[in-house]
Amino acid sequence: MKERKIILPEKDMPRRWYNIQADMPNPLQPPLNPATKKPAGPEDLSAIFPMALIEQEVSSERFIDIPEEVLNIYSMWRPSPLYRAYKLEEALGTPAKIYYKHEGVSPAGSHKPNTAVAQAYYNKAAGIKRLSTETGAGQWGSSLALACNYFDMECKVFMVKISYTQKPYRRSMMEVWGADVYASPTEMTKSGRDVLAKDADSNGSLGIAISEAVEDAAGRDDTNYSLGSVLNHVMLHQTIIGQECHKQLEMVGEYPDFVIGCCGGGSNFAGISFPFLHDKIRDDRKVRAIAVEPEACPTLSKGAFTYDYGDVAMYTPLLMMYTLGHDFMPPGIHAGGLRYHGESPLVSQLYNDGLIEARAYGQEGVFEAALTFSRTEGILPAPETAHAIKAAIDVAMECKEAGEEKTILFNLSGHGHFDLTAYDDYLAGKIKDVDYPQELIDQSIASLEKIV
Amino acid sequence: MKERKIILPEKDMPRRWYNIQADMPNPLQPPLNPATKKPAGPEDLSAIFPMALIEQEVSSERFIDIPEEVLNIYSMWRPSPLYRAYKLEEALGTPAKIYYKHEGVSPAGSHKPNTAVAQAYYNKAAGIKRLSTETGAGQWGSSLALACNYFDMECKVFMVKISYTQKPYRRSMMEVWGADVYASPTEMTKSGRDVLAKDADSNGSLGIAISEAVEDAAGRDDTNYSLGSVLNHVMLHQTIIGQECHKQLEMVGEYPDFVIGCCGGGSNFAGISFPFLHDKIRDDRKVRAIAVEPEACPTLSKGAFTYDYGDVAMYTPLLMMYTLGHDFMPPGIHAGGLRYHGESPLVSQLYNDGLIEARAYGQEGVFEAALTFSRTEGILPAPETAHAIKAAIDVAMECKEAGEEKTILFNLSGHGHFDLTAYDDYLAGKIKDVDYPQELIDQSIASLEKIV
Repeated sequence: MKERKIILPEKDMPRRWYNIQADMPNPLQPPLNPATKKPAGPEDLSAIFPMALIEQEVSSERFIDIPEEVLNIYSMWRPSPLYRAYKLEEALGTPAKIYYKHEGVSPAGSHKPNTAVAQAYYNKAAGIKRLSTETGAGQWGSSLALACNYFDMECKVFMVKISYTQKPYRRSMMEVWGADVYASPTEMTKSGRDVLAKDADSNGSLGIAISEAVEDAAGRDDTNYSLGSVLNHVMLHQTIIGQECHKQLEMVGEYPDFVIGCCGGGSNFAGISFPFLHDKIRDDRKVRAIAVEPEACPTLSKGAFTYDYGDVAMYTPLLMMYTLGHDFMPPGIHAGGLRYHGESPLVSQLYNDGLIEARAYGQEGVFEAALTFSRTEGILPAPETAHAIKAAIDVAMECKEAGEEKTILFNLSGHGHFDLTAYDDYLAGKIKDVDYPQELIDQSIASLEKIV
Repeated sequence: MKERKIILPEKDMPRRWYNIQADMPNPLQPPLNPATKKPAGPEDLSAIFPMALIEQEVSSERFIDIPEEVLNIYSMWRPSPLYRAYKLEEALGTPAKIYYKHEGVSPAGSHKPNTAVAQAYYNKAAGIKRLSTETGAGQWGSSLALACNYFDMECKVFMVKISYTQKPYRRSMMEVWGADVYASPTEMTKSGRDVLAKDADSNGSLGIAISEAVEDAAGRDDTNYSLGSVLNHVMLHQTIIGQECHKQLEMVGEYPDFVIGCCGGGSNFAGISFPFLHDKIRDDRKVRAIAVEPEACPTLSKGAFTYDYGDVAMYTPLLMMYTLGHDFMPPGIHAGGLRYHGESPLVSQLYNDGLIEARAYGQEGVFEAALTFSRTEGILPAPETAHAIKAAIDVAMECKEAGEEKTILFNLSGHGHFDLTAYDDYLAGKIKDVDYPQELIDQSIASLEKIV
């Protein structure tokens, strides 16, 4: 019998996060203050973030120690198992070896707690009692709720109203962990009231929810804001994923030719790929890192590399990143976590420097891949994660055609237990590819030229 | 940092199931043919079960080899992790050590695939192409769907109509794994049509769904019936749970004083406890095994030990077991998997012989325990599982009062990702204890005297 699971003992869990800023050939451009458009300093961020995270945001230390208290919580589910996908390989008839890292084993069901726990810890240490955040489908909100629960902090979640109504299970999960969840737009913030004044029946959007959460945090001394992707410190915290994979693959004498992750704001892709990009940059290893996007929101594939806001209301600092424009409204697809107009500045810079690749896929192919995976490996992936699976399958089939026994590693970033409506739609033939019209992307990007 | 997870390597996974029939001080009473009321022979069962399972049903071999093909599927998620519940212990302030076995890591989310995979394998080996079954809330149906998917068999699930409507996610999950799921009662069987003729709007019941599934299997040569609990071979297959625990506790130099499982038909309780009862019977170990029931359906605590039918329609063989009467209709509680009038004959005999104990709890205390567990250990348990947690917490608090450092092991039989509506109700104060009136239990049991 072949061993399927490669288990790293708890005692061998990485004790440091890897900071790719130490190794990038070209440094990041600084974020800009949205009002002055001058480089933003720590003081621009200290109203909503603790100094420890602001320091991580700009650090050039290669490795940053993970606090003992964070390791202690990580050990609830980490190290996460690495699987060899024997059944998938067999079904594809590929000579490639496929490995996947199962981040869905966290209590919240995805990789998001890796940063939520760290952020809660640093905020708690800075005397903060309460965190506010936004959530779309609920993966991030439930992760922060879990983290705040562990550090005995209050957690206020502005959940996009349409998700609040359509995904009640995620809301319940947050409440089980003690969070206060509100359907955004609310009457509790000026930004929420402004939206409701114009449209009392507004379904909300991630952009609106971010504005409400930031406003809530900025207005209270005991409260900070917490973001689940995009920022450098978030990417940093996720690198435990790739570092574990590194050790696990070593245990079976393997090194990946391909490292694959789905990519919305960039955090799970960064988490699995950065520790291997370390080897690529420093030791010239030939590993290829592939970020996978939806065709409906092809930020890296079709966006511009320029300064843009993180939100629709233009409250956030300007970030140098690949973007489809902060006004870009992606069509409604089931992978809600990948519907973001921008991209992590770190991932963006690496893409611009040719160190990583991007692929974009339509929904139909993605769900076909999700079904193939569910019926071979058993685990039901989240629709976001299924993008990585689709790419892994495609690469494996390319290996089959070329007769090459390559090693593929992808991140199973989350399970799909709360996404079964999407599977239902797929099985009923209701899921179709949604190509976003190129002219609208062009128009949205053109409007960016005026910003800086 | 203390190690939380005790991981048994795949190569050390048990290779045999443990058959407690070899060690019981008093043997089981034989099942009776429902028509003749004479002991049922293999020929009474061969219309719907393969001979290999019928042989296991009556075997007195102490250990039965697990086929390589079954081990191969088990290794998708087995050995499952054993956790030390440090955070729960700390919250309780108990000197007791609490361990839990996480069976929720299977793709279907519970221990049920342990027998589903074995049953699919033996049926496939006997040339059967199709399995039919019933499911209530969907835990069993999704496990059999998963198993049939692996052995490339068709799977037909009669799902109680009210669950089909109220728990669409479980239905979707079965369909993802390729099963055909129908809202029972259907027009496809005589038993379904009979019910619909009387009540076209019937919400269905487990009893009706069993009748439809048995009828479907009996009427087709290529189809057998599959049951997820109660029968001896089901208990047998689940013993891999307790055997793994045995090895895992040995790895940390522990042996349990208490082994706890929730108990509906008995399979997860049997799975975790039988391998320790082996030691109790043969080596006089002082381990106490506690089966935990809902107060609303207190089969062991308040039932009679007598012959009864497994279903409302009286199609099944008569089994000697603890029962509340096949007419007993438990009140609607959220732990749907524990709403069964009868009990595994093996568990029943052991209870009658004083080798195991039973406790019954009301819903309120059970959900309070579920919340305590979710907020300490992170994992959201199924409402059924929360009964075992409630008992584990109670025992731990008894240890605290007595100042005793006992070792408690319980089975975390499944996650609650599809049960969040119940948590919602609890948080909204809508969950109350439901005591079933004693006189109705007495009445239902009294009617049994006429059977044999």
